[in-house]
Amino acid sequence: MKTGAEYVNSLKDLKPRIFLGGRQVDLLENPTTMTVVRANAKVYDLAHEPEFADVMTADSPYIGRKVNRNLHIARNTGDLERRADMAILTAQKLGTCNYRCVGADVLNALASVTWELERDTGTPYHQRFVKYLTYLQENDLAVSGAVTDAKGDRSKRPPQQEEPDVHVRVVDRTSEGIVVRGAKVSQSGAIAAHETVVIPGMAMRPGEEDFAVAFAFPNGAPGVTYVCQYSPFTAEREVMPEKYLGNPLYGVRETSMIVFDNVFVPWERVFLCGEVRHTGTLISRFAKIHRMNCGGACKVGFADLVIGAAQLAAEYTGVDKVPHIVDKITEMICLSETCHACAIAAAVKGREEPPGSGVYLPDDVFGNVAKLNVAHGFWEIMKWAGDIAGGLVVTMPSEKELENPESGPLVRKFFGTAVVAEKRLRLAKFLQNWTAGLHGPGTWHGAGSPQAQRMALYRLTDLEAKKRLARELAGLE
Amino acid sequence: MKTGAEYVNSLKDLKPRIFLGGRQVDLLENPTTMTVVRANAKVYDLAHEPEFADVMTADSPYIGRKVNRNLHIARNTGDLERRADMAILTAQKLGTCNYRCVGADVLNALASVTWELERDTGTPYHQRFVKYLTYLQENDLAVSGAVTDAKGDRSKRPPQQEEPDVHVRVVDRTSEGIVVRGAKVSQSGAIAAHETVVIPGMAMRPGEEDFAVAFAFPNGAPGVTYVCQYSPFTAEREVMPEKYLGNPLYGVRETSMIVFDNVFVPWERVFLCGEVRHTGTLISRFAKIHRMNCGGACKVGFADLVIGAAQLAAEYTGVDKVPHIVDKITEMICLSETCHACAIAAAVKGREEPPGSGVYLPDDVFGNVAKLNVAHGFWEIMKWAGDIAGGLVVTMPSEKELENPESGPLVRKFFGTAVVAEKRLRLAKFLQNWTAGLHGPGTWHGAGSPQAQRMALYRLTDLEAKKRLARELAGLE
Amino acid sequence: MKTGAEYVNSLKDLKPRIFLGGRQVDLLENPTTMTVVRANAKVYDLAHEPEFADVMTADSPYIGRKVNRNLHIARNTGDLERRADMAILTAQKLGTCNYRCVGADVLNALASVTWELERDTGTPYHQRFVKYLTYLQENDLAVSGAVTDAKGDRSKRPPQQEEPDVHVRVVDRTSEGIVVRGAKVSQSGAIAAHETVVIPGMAMRPGEEDFAVAFAFPNGAPGVTYVCQYSPFTAEREVMPEKYLGNPLYGVRETSMIVFDNVFVPWERVFLCGEVRHTGTLISRFAKIHRMNCGGACKVGFADLVIGAAQLAAEYTGVDKVPHIVDKITEMICLSETCHACAIAAAVKGREEPPGSGVYLPDDVFGNVAKLNVAHGFWEIMKWAGDIAGGLVVTMPSEKELENPESGPLVRKFFGTAVVAEKRLRLAKFLQNWTAGLHGPGTWHGAGSPQAQRMALYRLTDLEAKKRLARELAGLE
Amino acid sequence: MKTGAEYVNSLKDLKPRIFLGGRQVDLLENPTTMTVVRANAKVYDLAHEPEFADVMTADSPYIGRKVNRNLHIARNTGDLERRADMAILTAQKLGTCNYRCVGADVLNALASVTWELERDTGTPYHQRFVKYLTYLQENDLAVSGAVTDAKGDRSKRPPQQEEPDVHVRVVDRTSEGIVVRGAKVSQSGAIAAHETVVIPGMAMRPGEEDFAVAFAFPNGAPGVTYVCQYSPFTAEREVMPEKYLGNPLYGVRETSMIVFDNVFVPWERVFLCGEVRHTGTLISRFAKIHRMNCGGACKVGFADLVIGAAQLAAEYTGVDKVPHIVDKITEMICLSETCHACAIAAAVKGREEPPGSGVYLPDDVFGNVAKLNVAHGFWEIMKWAGDIAGGLVVTMPSEKELENPESGPLVRKFFGTAVVAEKRLRLAKFLQNWTAGLHGPGTWHGAGSPQAQRMALYRLTDLEAKKRLARELAGLE
Repeated sequence: MKTGAEYVNSLKDLKPRIFLGGRQVDLLENPTTMTVVRANAKVYDLAHEPEFADVMTADSPYIGRKVNRNLHIARNTGDLERRADMAILTAQKLGTCNYRCVGADVLNALASVTWELERDTGTPYHQRFVKYLTYLQENDLAVSGAVTDAKGDRSKRPPQQEEPDVHVRVVDRTSEGIVVRGAKVSQSGAIAAHETVVIPGMAMRPGEEDFAVAFAFPNGAPGVTYVCQYSPFTAEREVMPEKYLGNPLYGVRETSMIVFDNVFVPWERVFLCGEVRHTGTLISRFAKIHRMNCGGACKVGFADLVIGAAQLAAEYTGVDKVPHIVDKITEMICLSETCHACAIAAAVKGREEPPGSGVYLPDDVFGNVAKLNVAHGFWEIMKWAGDIAGGLVVTMPSEKELENPESGPLVRKFFGTAVVAEKRLRLAKFLQNWTAGLHGPGTWHGAGSPQAQRMALYRLTDLEAKKRLARELAGLE
Repeated sequence: MKTGAEYVNSLKDLKPRIFLGGRQVDLLENPTTMTVVRANAKVYDLAHEPEFADVMTADSPYIGRKVNRNLHIARNTGDLERRADMAILTAQKLGTCNYRCVGADVLNALASVTWELERDTGTPYHQRFVKYLTYLQENDLAVSGAVTDAKGDRSKRPPQQEEPDVHVRVVDRTSEGIVVRGAKVSQSGAIAAHETVVIPGMAMRPGEEDFAVAFAFPNGAPGVTYVCQYSPFTAEREVMPEKYLGNPLYGVRETSMIVFDNVFVPWERVFLCGEVRHTGTLISRFAKIHRMNCGGACKVGFADLVIGAAQLAAEYTGVDKVPHIVDKITEMICLSETCHACAIAAAVKGREEPPGSGVYLPDDVFGNVAKLNVAHGFWEIMKWAGDIAGGLVVTMPSEKELENPESGPLVRKFFGTAVVAEKRLRLAKFLQNWTAGLHGPGTWHGAGSPQAQRMALYRLTDLEAKKRLARELAGLE
Repeated sequence: MKTGAEYVNSLKDLKPRIFLGGRQVDLLENPTTMTVVRANAKVYDLAHEPEFADVMTADSPYIGRKVNRNLHIARNTGDLERRADMAILTAQKLGTCNYRCVGADVLNALASVTWELERDTGTPYHQRFVKYLTYLQENDLAVSGAVTDAKGDRSKRPPQQEEPDVHVRVVDRTSEGIVVRGAKVSQSGAIAAHETVVIPGMAMRPGEEDFAVAFAFPNGAPGVTYVCQYSPFTAEREVMPEKYLGNPLYGVRETSMIVFDNVFVPWERVFLCGEVRHTGTLISRFAKIHRMNCGGACKVGFADLVIGAAQLAAEYTGVDKVPHIVDKITEMICLSETCHACAIAAAVKGREEPPGSGVYLPDDVFGNVAKLNVAHGFWEIMKWAGDIAGGLVVTMPSEKELENPESGPLVRKFFGTAVVAEKRLRLAKFLQNWTAGLHGPGTWHGAGSPQAQRMALYRLTDLEAKKRLARELAGLE
Repeated sequence: MKTGAEYVNSLKDLKPRIFLGGRQVDLLENPTTMTVVRANAKVYDLAHEPEFADVMTADSPYIGRKVNRNLHIARNTGDLERRADMAILTAQKLGTCNYRCVGADVLNALASVTWELERDTGTPYHQRFVKYLTYLQENDLAVSGAVTDAKGDRSKRPPQQEEPDVHVRVVDRTSEGIVVRGAKVSQSGAIAAHETVVIPGMAMRPGEEDFAVAFAFPNGAPGVTYVCQYSPFTAEREVMPEKYLGNPLYGVRETSMIVFDNVFVPWERVFLCGEVRHTGTLISRFAKIHRMNCGGACKVGFADLVIGAAQLAAEYTGVDKVPHIVDKITEMICLSETCHACAIAAAVKGREEPPGSGVYLPDDVFGNVAKLNVAHGFWEIMKWAGDIAGGLVVTMPSEKELENPESGPLVRKFFGTAVVAEKRLRLAKFLQNWTAGLHGPGTWHGAGSPQAQRMALYRLTDLEAKKRLARELAGLE
């Protein structure tokens, strides 16, 4: 398995075409894209730390040795539990995305669906997939996953859109492969991955075969362009030294739009092509995996950071024993551990899907419930942490002020209570990153918007069984 | 294992002294006390149904054969999962207490603590306990558990109370046994149990040795009196035919105050006596078991009934496809499955406590979180079910009106839409029982009031670890 | 103006046909119907107390002297404020319905709509109304209002129902008057009123003229039958002495279904007949008045009782200074005063409607918001009061137990802490009435279910204006 | 009254010493400080628009002509209503602070307290105040208010702090005036005001006379330094053209720390000095005014913008008729109008305080409730707006990308649905400003943290009266 340094080194050969803030940028030079590189490097390094070996690595039956868990296909419920643990651990250590997370979940969904596809259609999708997976594991590659299409007018199906490219689609098929066009948006981490795996963003219907396509491509493939998100946090990283920022090393979650302009994909990298019937299965299997990890687990790691920081902030101003502060800390713990419980339940109630495939997927109900709880819960956690952090989290001056011979002593004097001003400002900046930034709506929409989980939950519930129970007791049978 | 009928038959020998609504009543004659008897009989019968065998029974190492799970000591996390499943199943089938539930959880807590006590003190508490448990299992006895003292002035410790009997206490010790006085309140099911096991309601301190006592007594023991709860639902059961009531067979949860007036308990039924240091352990182990079962599991079974009934109510008035109704059903499912997830997490993260004892207890954090979620969640579920059920749930006439030749046809005419009036009224009455009755505060306080869980949760959390994570990322190390 | 005693005396001439619990009952004999009589008598008496004169009475321009505010038509926003104050005051003093409240609000809505009807159609509806109102005021009569139809299948319009009588309708028109059939449900107070005013329960459309009817009838009119609600609280009042009940004198809100079996109504009591276009106006004007009073005001008076009782309960067990108790009391105050503020805003932002009519109606937006806040808020208040009251609120024995020479001393001993057992049980019973009974769904559906308020609120909001503001600032103009 | 242009012109004479991001900056050159200048100019201009004359201006009895309402002392409840209306209007028009708001509320509090001080002590504080106010009104000056001290260790009183300057204090008194030291933090708008009025941040006690000081100083006074807040939004404004920002003209709320380094204040500008007994009165009167305006009113104007923008966002993607979107828009309206109602109630229930002073102050209970509702409500509004806005609100590229010949066409193609990409990005950026930025904790802590309002609410409530009501009904008298 690669170390972080080896991973960074390996990026030098890639030449991704990346735009950010209106300019083309170099992945390894731009301060914002570098946060993604650094986060990935840390994930590579964590796999080498003995205390995390159980969580970060797994034994691969494909190559017969240890692999990074981000490339592992779950073979039992224990694997699912460790997968959720990895989401918590990387969140705790990065304070931002494990940018290989979506890729890992897409690979697991494809492991299950390509097995079914090959069984049902005879096309050797699963053989291709296994070969590709073996290649990834042997080289310990960073893989990202791309799901969400640009979508356009949401009241229209893909073929009815004025601009057909708003959903990724196949525009040509040859004996060597396919040619794709379109764009995926809100994609985390592709700019710094070795490979990206693309799946449809929704269930397709007959007549929408061109939009039913799953494939992989290497970073730097001809025709691929990345246009990065740009937020106030991007701007601040451009003008301020890293150490004065909220999450100095890893920043906020960075995403990009990936544009495909007639990108050629050889057949050995095509894992679904035209089988509309299986697209619903694929997206819903991906969703159930990702909702466990992104909803129930990753954000629990984030919550640990926020709770820890809020507790520190309370200690810095001497209010940590005040009953209402204790109560708010408790509330945050309760919200976080509720999501944690949902992730655990999703994992331990997981099943082999389809039977015979050897692939284990988490339970759907609990995965959806995990995400729903975290969507609301994270806003609550932000609220309570913001309460404890105080107005400073919004009105603080820059720590850079401390460098100025005139304003520095003033800031030092008036913010240097209980702890030195550097500490107090640094902690406030860290909490600003969590409570006054992108995390609310980011957490809300990550792994799908809550309305999608609500619809899934209603659909998954056996209301007839519950009605029978009620009728029996009420004397209505 | 006994059948329900055998259980009822066995009650004839007991002569409990029971008061209810100001009069002494006969356990097997009073319509309210009979709901408890019937519920117990159903739990006995469920253990004989093959489809529930896995949930309702377990293999006992003590007597070498199958026992009712209510008498089983958990020996692994699978047992804990099945224990929670039993809570869900009995709740679904009874719509009220499994009145052996607290007893089961007290027995498990005692299995753990007596092992520790015997190891630490040399007194053969665990040997006594095992002998007692064997007796229970061999005779498949119904055991209830009594925990909550009358308490008195809550700002004072037990020895400072004006009336020392407000906490159960030892008033005499002889070579044969002890003599106890006092009262336990809010106790579920003792009136119809064969045996009741009593533990302290709180952690005792040095100087409070008399109040540190755990023991068992048979129903009908001299000096024991039960004073039952009396609610509007009790009254309605006295004056209305059973079939016109909300939960016709099993009613609402019935409790009593158990008064001990110099009750003699032989040493073989005394499981803790004076060891104040172990009382905190005992009550907190009981709490963690019971919060999983009562908080995370039992109420999930109740929620199934409420959701099923609400869905039926929506169908009866033709509104079940209306978006806001679907949304409310979904919300109830989400609340319920959240608690369910917490119970599962509590079970699978359970541990052997103390190591070497062979006894498995659920995880504390998730047990407490389960209870906190259900405390708030059940009020929400009541709210949404009440919304769907409509004003009828409050303003409905009695179904008995249908018997009246004058008013009957009127009620039949105006409530007989979509389904006949009997069905509509019966369902409304069932939902009245859930949404306009005792369940809100009952669920809130069962297994301890939420403030107790909040304090436990704060205490159980390693805030130092979270602070370290935050400091590391914020650049504060 | 009548005294309470004069009111009770005046009832002796009425002979309402009332069924309750399957039997015909006498209004002045049945313990449950008597709670309604007593509540009305108290409202009559309050109008004679000098300290409440400003709230309970008003100067009538129709008869040139003071009238009970329940018969007053609001002539300015001050009247609207006092009307809301009356709702708070009667709620505080009764702990149940002011049973003349709906009648008062229906009269005000009719004052406005009949003026408009007469202006638009020439039919002397307003002259009739004024004559009727003068009659009511001169005799200080108790008037109830009936709005909600039995409805049947909610996916069908009135003429499509299998049973056409599920909405009240005109079945004959003669030169003397009209003949009506049908049923109103969930009606508060008609059994003990002198008169009841009936309006359509929804906006009618062309083709539904028979269902567009508003009229008044005297209690005891031939063809009218009342079928009362029957709840566990009704049963308890049948079997227990009044003093042992939760709200001894006034009980819970009692409603009935009013059945009209070819009831003749003379034209001078018909206030709308066939003008479908005005039915929407009528019901929405009634709604906005009643949502202010029932939503924002009445429940604030209830909340005062619940908060006061919860505070007492905390003092009885010595926990009133504990931070989390203080916090919960504060939360209840905040919820209640929020609704209070909405009622005040609805009143002071009221307007003359239609201009020229002299009738003032509250603001729609704030009336709806008041009701929405109270619907959710009252469940929360019940939750927190139940928390403070403790398990006792559910598991308490009857106070009647104290009469029993055997169980009485036991109850007295174990519940007699801080205050004597009578007090503690009486307070717990009072809180049981609030937190473990009919108030949650009752408050939810009173004045219309929240979904109706939500739809009204959306419809009432000028989203275009808000969009313009956003566009202007965002640089989108 | 000045126009906006005249105001800007008048600033050229001031020479405030301002630091921002570690550098000294010129008020009229820095893009961030200029947002404050622009906002103030707009508030000056609004007073000249006839349609807003009633809201933005008032007749001053001091100078006998119209003044900007920001300099008006409320003389009746109508003035209080208009004051709240002004807060809504300026919020709608600026999307950020009316930076004269705190100043207006401090002036009103001082009008009341100096009258009382002069009456009680004989010191001509009120005469001074009136003279100062006359000067402000005659010159139509922009006045800001400074309240919050740096505070230091919150478990210690001001004199016990290690660094005594963490609370503003008097260090010298001469016949001409006083000399002050210390710092006020989280101060809005002082950098661009002509004058700032300073009051104590808390109630002082005997022995803390040096900290009991209220005074005014002109911008640019010797010894005064401003250190501005610096957030990611500040950084973005430094590097991006204004039109690509979320609230292009007015930005986010900007605050500064004001440091006083031996600043001399002549007696005619000192309004309280040493009278510790009146400091509690002063801060609590200020709080009740400001909680109405900042809590109940200003944020209602913000909510209008957010709701309008969310509705536009829904229309841009064709989902505005989807039931769950309609439901979320409704929820936001309900939250906002609830706060609005509280502000109205606070205004109309206002009273002359102290009697005889001629100064009207809002009601305390409703002011506190307004703030509590908005604190929680604004987080909810952010949540729902973020839901409707979609992931784009976090993951959007910069609109500047459209200028780039390579990436521009890609962004234009994939975000140009329903409306052109410029519009869609501009709206998303506007919503990013609201839902993914400083507004959550900013709104929470503005006008005091919610815990302060909770304590005030509990203290203001007459629990004895509520207990009496409960006792009377429960039969406990």
